[in-house]
Amino acid sequence: MNTSRVTRGVHIIGAGLIGTSLGLALRHAGIPTSLEDANQKALHLAHSLGAGETHALRDPACVVVAVPPATTTEVVLAALQNFPDAVVTDLASVKAPVADTVARSTHAHRYVGSHPMAGREISGAQGAQGDLFRARSWVVCAGAGSPKSVDVVVGIAEAVGADVVHMEAQAHDHAVAYVSHVPQLLSSALASNMEKVSAEHLPLAGAGLRDMTRLASSDAALWKEIAGLNVEDVRAALGDIITTLTRIHDAHDIGPAVEELVAHGAQEVARIPGKHGGGRDMWAEITVIVPDTGGQLLKLLTAIDEANVNIEDLAIEHSPQQPVGLVRVSVQEETAAALVTHLTTQGWNVVEA
Amino acid sequence: MNTSRVTRGVHIIGAGLIGTSLGLALRHAGIPTSLEDANQKALHLAHSLGAGETHALRDPACVVVAVPPATTTEVVLAALQNFPDAVVTDLASVKAPVADTVARSTHAHRYVGSHPMAGREISGAQGAQGDLFRARSWVVCAGAGSPKSVDVVVGIAEAVGADVVHMEAQAHDHAVAYVSHVPQLLSSALASNMEKVSAEHLPLAGAGLRDMTRLASSDAALWKEIAGLNVEDVRAALGDIITTLTRIHDAHDIGPAVEELVAHGAQEVARIPGKHGGGRDMWAEITVIVPDTGGQLLKLLTAIDEANVNIEDLAIEHSPQQPVGLVRVSVQEETAAALVTHLTTQGWNVVEA
Repeated sequence: MNTSRVTRGVHIIGAGLIGTSLGLALRHAGIPTSLEDANQKALHLAHSLGAGETHALRDPACVVVAVPPATTTEVVLAALQNFPDAVVTDLASVKAPVADTVARSTHAHRYVGSHPMAGREISGAQGAQGDLFRARSWVVCAGAGSPKSVDVVVGIAEAVGADVVHMEAQAHDHAVAYVSHVPQLLSSALASNMEKVSAEHLPLAGAGLRDMTRLASSDAALWKEIAGLNVEDVRAALGDIITTLTRIHDAHDIGPAVEELVAHGAQEVARIPGKHGGGRDMWAEITVIVPDTGGQLLKLLTAIDEANVNIEDLAIEHSPQQPVGLVRVSVQEETAAALVTHLTTQGWNVVEA
Repeated sequence: MNTSRVTRGVHIIGAGLIGTSLGLALRHAGIPTSLEDANQKALHLAHSLGAGETHALRDPACVVVAVPPATTTEVVLAALQNFPDAVVTDLASVKAPVADTVARSTHAHRYVGSHPMAGREISGAQGAQGDLFRARSWVVCAGAGSPKSVDVVVGIAEAVGADVVHMEAQAHDHAVAYVSHVPQLLSSALASNMEKVSAEHLPLAGAGLRDMTRLASSDAALWKEIAGLNVEDVRAALGDIITTLTRIHDAHDIGPAVEELVAHGAQEVARIPGKHGGGRDMWAEITVIVPDTGGQLLKLLTAIDEANVNIEDLAIEHSPQQPVGLVRVSVQEETAAALVTHLTTQGWNVVEA
């Protein structure tokens, strides 16, 4: 890891979870950092966690804007003004609005957009952690930024252990509308319509519904800003989904329409990368019924380890009324049969899919 | 468990995964079973697995129809004719069409509908297992069935360890449209529209998209039949979702509309039962970064066990390019802080949400 591009240090605007986590990660990599935040309490907390100094570095190599999406553009423009020798990047999850505005400024060559895909646990304020970006994709949108500016931002992403993915801002916003923004809206719409289901019927909900509504617990204020910034792409992607669903809804004969949709969906879902870019269709899923008491999961994993089988994925499904859980374990196809035999011999209740 | 209501035995029509699993479970409970299937190969396999005799019991207490949804009604009517002293039930996932037709027959008092919620792993043919129904909800729709008939069907559900839930057929079909059928269609529609995302952009997909598209790998032929049988309820529930999504799509100002939707969804999702009827909002989620090598998950669970903390839920998220995985562990709120301290002290990389 070559951090020489950023040895002059990084100034971070915004001491929320992401800004603070970035400060911790950069300090961990030996890079000087400073922070600022209008909220003095947040700034003080970030400082005491060790995320950076509260007096801005005099001549930082880079200024990172880590404020809510809706205020990102104005803060980026101010930073380009206030730090005339620094590269400026931002971490907002919508890239084109900032890029488009900055492109019209005389500082465009010093701005490069970033989007670290730090995942859903980004909320709350106390949980800042220096490993938040490790092994996550970090999208870099060069735009009108100079090669040297891109280099500095890539240096930051690499310093915190992220995987750099280069992408144009428009392409990024288009892609996240489909893979992130519209999935959020579908999850929320589905959850919202649960008001039509009475409390006595909700126990019919299985693992499928729980998967489909997990995103629905997200932060409404954040999604207001994201949708407001990615209006065109979200509308287009949402329009596509509405068209698909309306075709089913209006079908004269709903059965064949559903069959075609489910078949096409199954084909497309196989393209989504799972582990290390491999498709999940190479895995076999084994379901084990375990008493839902402390230590059973550990015992099961010990048994799987004894069989020298590596677990690719694992999910737990709880039964609403009984003290029993179903554990779904995904393993490499070729190891499945031997594992089932091993577990069954040991007395585990295995349901093979 | 009182199995006296079904000591005369159970005849199962359909030797697929569900019929065979039911046979195994009933035999395990000491109840005589027989099976029939037009497919002699399937019948022979079920018999050799020990699911039941291939010659129909002469005077079974109950006949269970375990054939595909679309053919269930005619098979139920034939069974009522052919077994004049037996109670007849079926296991189809849509209940009103069978119930409505049977209600017009002179045998209506001998029919009771069933829907064992045996979960998503119901596909394929070799995986029959006697514990498939244990700790799962088993919906019983009494309809025009006599109390004695209901008693027999409840006896079967209890014999295989399921949790009996009494419900009217119409209410069942309405509820499953919302909690099962429409979630399937949303997942398939979302997956289907991934065709708009190029392969190079798919690595932006995170755990959220994977959750939302897990159902999309389902069996298209089965869903054709389910949708075809629950047309009205599926159309109504799908119409509700389309209305919700269209309101967002057409909003003059999309941001506030999204904020309202996400906030309402978060409120409704808290009603969905998690473990033992408790809401998942009582859990704290801890994310741990682990090297994605064999045995690490086991080591982590050992460490959690040492801290005397019980795991409520667990999910693994893989990084597309690096040999590192994120393990999300849900624990009781009050145990979270001590667990984080314990794991951190042991050198684990913990990201607290």
